[in-house]
Amino acid sequence: MYIYLIRHGIAGDRAKYSNDADRPLTDIGRNKTKKVAKRLFDLDLRFDIILTSPLVRAMETAKILQEVQLCKKIETFEPLSPNGDINIWINWYALHKSCNSIALVGHQPDLGNWAEILTWGKTQEKLIVKKAGVIGVRISENGTPIGNSEIFLLSSPKWLV
Amino acid sequence: MYIYLIRHGIAGDRAKYSNDADRPLTDIGRNKTKKVAKRLFDLDLRFDIILTSPLVRAMETAKILQEVQLCKKIETFEPLSPNGDINIWINWYALHKSCNSIALVGHQPDLGNWAEILTWGKTQEKLIVKKAGVIGVRISENGTPIGNSEIFLLSSPKWLV
Repeated sequence: MYIYLIRHGIAGDRAKYSNDADRPLTDIGRNKTKKVAKRLFDLDLRFDIILTSPLVRAMETAKILQEVQLCKKIETFEPLSPNGDINIWINWYALHKSCNSIALVGHQPDLGNWAEILTWGKTQEKLIVKKAGVIGVRISENGTPIGNSEIFLLSSPKWLV
Repeated sequence: MYIYLIRHGIAGDRAKYSNDADRPLTDIGRNKTKKVAKRLFDLDLRFDIILTSPLVRAMETAKILQEVQLCKKIETFEPLSPNGDINIWINWYALHKSCNSIALVGHQPDLGNWAEILTWGKTQEKLIVKKAGVIGVRISENGTPIGNSEIFLLSSPKWLV
C-alpha cells in the first residue's frame, strides 16, 4: 500500500481564533493546496480513501483533494488530530489492506512522526514537512508496517508545483 | 548547510561493460538528468561545490549539473564511490563549514545510507532514491552532523519535472 501523508495548507492566524481546531485555510493556503492537489492528479495519483483529521484546516485540505478528483471518499479519522495515536491507524490498516493508495491528512509534527515510526520504528522528528507538503510511504505487504516501510517521497509544495 | 545528495542518472547496461565504473549515462538517462538539473536551477538552487563519485555515470551526472549553471566547481571525491566511508566526508565537512549549499553525486544504497546516518544516526536502508533522484538534508550548525540533521526533500525525477 502507498500512503500519502499530506499536511494541511496555510491556515488562519492562531491569535484570531479562540479554538485552534476552527482555523480555516487562508486564501493563499487554499490556492497553494489546490496547486499541489492538481499536480498530484496530473501525476496520476488516485486514492482509495482520504482519512482526515477533524480539524477545520485539515478537513478543508481533504476537500480540496476530493474536488480535484483525487478521491471520492473522505472520512474523518480522530487519530489524525494532533497527538493522535498511530496504533489506532495500524488497526484500521489491518482491516483495509486491499487499498492500493490512501491519503492521510493531518498535522505536524504528527505526520512526520508517523512516517518515521512506519519506516524506522520510532521517531526522532527529523522530517521537515511544510504546509501542503507530502510524505510518501510504501508499506510492505508482509508483517506489521511499523519499522517495515520505506519513504519514497518527501516534498514541500515548492518542489512539486 | 544544505546538502543535496543526487543519484546518477540511468546508465548503460551492466552486461555491456567489463568494468562497472566505466558505464556512461544512456541518452534517456542524460535527458532525464538534464531536466532534473534545469528544474533545480529554476528553483534557484546553486551549489558552492559538487563533490562526485569518480565513476563515469556519476561524473557525467555532475557535469550536467555544472552545464546548467548550478555550480562552477566539481571535485571528484573517492568516498562517494560505492561503499565509501561517510566519515571521510565528515572530515571534509569540518573544513568546509562556510559552504551554504553543496551537492554530492553518487550511488545507491550509499546516498540513502548517508542521509539516514546524518539524520537518524544509523542506516536501515529505508529511503527509496531513484536514478537522478535527490535527497535534501539540512545540517545543523552546531555539533556533529551525524544524527543531528534533518531531511527536507526526497524525490525521484517523476515528482520534480
